[in-house]
Amino acid sequence: MRDGENDSCSCGFDSCSEITNVSDWMKDYSKKAGTKGFVIGLSGGIDSSVMACLSVKAAGRENVIGVSLPIQTRKDMVIDAERLASNLCIKLVTINLEKTYNETIEAMLQGGIVINDIVQANVKARLRMTALYGVANSVNYLVAGTGNLSELMVGYCTKYGDGGVDVEPIGNYYKAEVYKLAELMPEIPNNVITKAPSADLWEGQTDEEELGMTYDELDEILKALASGISSELDKIDISRITKVEKMIQAAKHKNNPPARYIRN
Amino acid sequence: MRDGENDSCSCGFDSCSEITNVSDWMKDYSKKAGTKGFVIGLSGGIDSSVMACLSVKAAGRENVIGVSLPIQTRKDMVIDAERLASNLCIKLVTINLEKTYNETIEAMLQGGIVINDIVQANVKARLRMTALYGVANSVNYLVAGTGNLSELMVGYCTKYGDGGVDVEPIGNYYKAEVYKLAELMPEIPNNVITKAPSADLWEGQTDEEELGMTYDELDEILKALASGISSELDKIDISRITKVEKMIQAAKHKNNPPARYIRN
Repeated sequence: MRDGENDSCSCGFDSCSEITNVSDWMKDYSKKAGTKGFVIGLSGGIDSSVMACLSVKAAGRENVIGVSLPIQTRKDMVIDAERLASNLCIKLVTINLEKTYNETIEAMLQGGIVINDIVQANVKARLRMTALYGVANSVNYLVAGTGNLSELMVGYCTKYGDGGVDVEPIGNYYKAEVYKLAELMPEIPNNVITKAPSADLWEGQTDEEELGMTYDELDEILKALASGISSELDKIDISRITKVEKMIQAAKHKNNPPARYIRN
Repeated sequence: MRDGENDSCSCGFDSCSEITNVSDWMKDYSKKAGTKGFVIGLSGGIDSSVMACLSVKAAGRENVIGVSLPIQTRKDMVIDAERLASNLCIKLVTINLEKTYNETIEAMLQGGIVINDIVQANVKARLRMTALYGVANSVNYLVAGTGNLSELMVGYCTKYGDGGVDVEPIGNYYKAEVYKLAELMPEIPNNVITKAPSADLWEGQTDEEELGMTYDELDEILKALASGISSELDKIDISRITKVEKMIQAAKHKNNPPARYIRN
């Protein structure tokens, strides 16, 4: 990581300071939790790549484990995850969940459950969480999440799947800002930065197609909503704002603990 | 359920009112969430049995699905779950996760992970969550949690396992109060009430042995701590209070969303 460079830009986002601040926070959180390092599920995507770099800065490369968790995963994603781990000189553990996934689906089919695309995608994410915690538990590390603000706000994640982690260090950065952080991380393979973001939930899936808008559009709306400035909101098509507001509302249960009945 | 009876007792706990209140809350929550019913993992234990009864009261028996999720599970627990479902006339789905569990452990071993009792127990709980959500997703139901206040406060649950649910309707009742609720639920087989509570995480496991105290002792300490009344606390051995306070502290991360770095 290029520590010393000053990358503050006209938008006021200073990648260098942010990298220092968030990795300091991770270091502090891990110390208070009495844990020794971080485990990250490496998908070959931008978010997990940035998280791996931040984890190395926070805990040192000897205390970071990258985990590759293939289930019907695109080859290029697996290769990019391996290259990142190699560039960072961190331990890479591969837990092939292909058979586990097939067994889970089979058991559910035998139980009479109707399996659609969403069910399949969620099962994959939750099996990955299960294996990731297996690694973390066995070495007393924290599971570092890879959710960014844009995705977490609209609930673009699986509850108790990729959303099931101990810490969300980049959970307050918009997607575009995660790319900004990546610019100071030369260990990240170039094509991780250039390829279309995909949760690889099914063949050919891209995040932006599934979200129904580009990340730039989503970020613009989220920022306008957060600012509350009507002149900012006025620039955007109202139907798109309404769509995002509905997504935020529907995502609330994903960003909170289970609702509990409060006694009178 | 014996609705009309008055079961208020000297301790001030009115089971009948509580059953009405909590099931009304469930009904209301489900309506607001736009869901049609509840899915509950039936373990053959007291908490899930009470939850199944409450769910029937909240949503009607045709909108409740009990799910049996055996993984190296005691026969008597499976039979008790089946009897409860039969007594309540609810649909019972069995998803046998034995092979899925073996495949998960095998994949983790091949990845070089050290598997201990805790890792195994957590994998079981998380695979059950995964399957339970598969059922819930496929029919647009909520996953009803079975955590009670005594267990949730000290973190006696698996994060994103049995703790991974949509609602915790009995999450503010002490264990002894869950038994009080069960007294008004004749559908619950008698031996569910009389057998030693066990999460069935390994052979011969009982909750009280694992907790290092009885539920009555735990409840007494939790109530004394909640009251803040020093004369109540003075009655209890200080080392036991300290032990429970440490458990509560260590459980905080289980009862909150993942920690997020807050930007300056």
